[in-house]
Amino acid sequence: MPSSLSALPLPHIAPLHPYTPGVQPTGAGWVKLNTNECPYPPTPRVAEALRSEIGERGAPLRLYPNPTSGPLRAAIAALHGLTDAQVCVGNGSDDILNLLVRCLGGPAAATAFTRPSYSLYPVLVAIQNGGIEVIEFDRSMLLPIAEIAASTAPAFFLTSPNAPTGVGFTRQEIAAILGSYRGLLVVDEAYAPFAEEDAVSLLAEHRNLVVVRTLSKAYALAGIRVGYALADPEVIGWLDRVRDSYNVNRLSQTAALAAFSDPEYYSAIIAKVKQTREACFRKCAYQRGWFTYPSRANFLFTEPRSAAGEAGPAVALSAYNFLYANRVLVRHFPSHALTAPFLRISIGTDEEMKFLDDTFDAWLKAPPNA
Amino acid sequence: MPSSLSALPLPHIAPLHPYTPGVQPTGAGWVKLNTNECPYPPTPRVAEALRSEIGERGAPLRLYPNPTSGPLRAAIAALHGLTDAQVCVGNGSDDILNLLVRCLGGPAAATAFTRPSYSLYPVLVAIQNGGIEVIEFDRSMLLPIAEIAASTAPAFFLTSPNAPTGVGFTRQEIAAILGSYRGLLVVDEAYAPFAEEDAVSLLAEHRNLVVVRTLSKAYALAGIRVGYALADPEVIGWLDRVRDSYNVNRLSQTAALAAFSDPEYYSAIIAKVKQTREACFRKCAYQRGWFTYPSRANFLFTEPRSAAGEAGPAVALSAYNFLYANRVLVRHFPSHALTAPFLRISIGTDEEMKFLDDTFDAWLKAPPNA
Repeated sequence: MPSSLSALPLPHIAPLHPYTPGVQPTGAGWVKLNTNECPYPPTPRVAEALRSEIGERGAPLRLYPNPTSGPLRAAIAALHGLTDAQVCVGNGSDDILNLLVRCLGGPAAATAFTRPSYSLYPVLVAIQNGGIEVIEFDRSMLLPIAEIAASTAPAFFLTSPNAPTGVGFTRQEIAAILGSYRGLLVVDEAYAPFAEEDAVSLLAEHRNLVVVRTLSKAYALAGIRVGYALADPEVIGWLDRVRDSYNVNRLSQTAALAAFSDPEYYSAIIAKVKQTREACFRKCAYQRGWFTYPSRANFLFTEPRSAAGEAGPAVALSAYNFLYANRVLVRHFPSHALTAPFLRISIGTDEEMKFLDDTFDAWLKAPPNA
Repeated sequence: MPSSLSALPLPHIAPLHPYTPGVQPTGAGWVKLNTNECPYPPTPRVAEALRSEIGERGAPLRLYPNPTSGPLRAAIAALHGLTDAQVCVGNGSDDILNLLVRCLGGPAAATAFTRPSYSLYPVLVAIQNGGIEVIEFDRSMLLPIAEIAASTAPAFFLTSPNAPTGVGFTRQEIAAILGSYRGLLVVDEAYAPFAEEDAVSLLAEHRNLVVVRTLSKAYALAGIRVGYALADPEVIGWLDRVRDSYNVNRLSQTAALAAFSDPEYYSAIIAKVKQTREACFRKCAYQRGWFTYPSRANFLFTEPRSAAGEAGPAVALSAYNFLYANRVLVRHFPSHALTAPFLRISIGTDEEMKFLDDTFDAWLKAPPNA
């Protein structure tokens, strides 16, 4: 027996800080606006398809799932006008991002991304003991196209629309990067269904583009963990070599296929979320006068001002805590100067946003440090 | 744009050979004895619990799953008389094995295993560009205890009962290894519910032991992808740093919890599989006179002999092909001298085993090269 277990893992493992997911409350009574889930249920076809797959006795569950998620790949390819060989399905888009990092990043190959962006990227790179290259946004959140295009990293991860700011980038901006960037540009489009444009059509001209999507947000299926990559067949081949051969379980494949069969349903709920988002934006930005980035996602990033007119990390934390005490969950990112004065608020139902708004009113009226 | 995509991934990625899963036929009419699934459905409580979770509209699916699989961890801990901190749940036990390799193996840290054993291990190590150390069984398949105990690898993966041979090892043999091996011993107990003993109780004395389990075989839930690790809380901490924060989806957590609530059901189907296994063993070993390893798993590893009394890789392949042509799927492992003369046959229902047996009879009567 070893004298100490701690001598066994690779030296970079024990100091790792895992990704911090948003709080997932187990009790009822929370207004949950913290993890960008859809406030509406998935299409009823999902429940129907699952009941049909489960059957009376759950007998099909004894069998392994389709190892390539074959029918689901075909449906995704058809949705985007691509071939099956341009699609890889993951256990959530986090699985896809992880596979990309494992294929392209390591101690001798820095992985690049902007800051702020999806905070999972540095976690995935650290697990591989990889180097990182960070391009910082400034408060304008304008895309630093020239800097990204000049990166020498083999892979650049770009969240578009960005998180946690919600700022959207245009297809033309992405194309401008692809015009000279020599690595693999991973455009993480988790929120693209809520945006005005996306990068998918650029795949036709750019072999070094990967578009990553998820069913967790616009498809109201965070619980089933399905995401996918769209890319050149050569890139898909790398991912298929590294992914687990049964990475997507049987019920998740079933649910995702059913979701893709009902685009009308999703058009309607996406339109509703965008409508609520714009109403909430007007409330925060114009009525309250809080600086708020125009959002192309299903959340808003807003900088609360106290009754005394002050903004900043302490004010944001005060608002966060007040909301929390009133069972409203939002997200605060205190670890970066550009994000610490803000709160990220997922777009809920109109009723939930009304409750949020009332709670902000109460916060403004509460005595300081209440 | 890069002149060639192939310059981008890490050099070891493109040459990788992915794990080859058993054929998953999509049409009906196959007798499927190739991936060690359970021939019986899961407890009816699984379907009930899934229907309850899905509800009328699938509304809970819009929410992320419990990121730690908390209630499931607690159920697994209770099942084995351990604490929650000694349990990590994975997207199948393959996820757990992958996490272990990522924590412990790499270019400077060889990962060790026996050959033959579960053929996924070298695939997982290759993905990390890791070194490997192989200890070869001989045809006796007796556990080379002294050689394993003397390994200097930080991690040793031992399939127990072994795959694809089905040979069981005793708790005393595992304890003998742990008595002097200084690395982390990963005992992959995918098939342990079909064996006479297991290594779980050794966790109380050996901090460098990890026991890995799956719900794919004995729990008849290959379709939902749930497996787990039992280990010292320090080891579990490594796995939790490296795993995806939502690695197990909502429905899989629900299904697994329901399965653990019905041990009587599973005792009965495991007893039935063992009874069928023993009947099939007697048929192959004693009536046909084919060399067959005594099995402690839910499959048999048997060496077919032709009507002319010959055995060997070509004979095994001939039998495999004849079975395949008659829509009976088994598994052949031609890439190792010790496994190439054998077929691995999952234990199915009595009816399926009768059909297999009749098909072997037909093979023996068929003209050579038929």
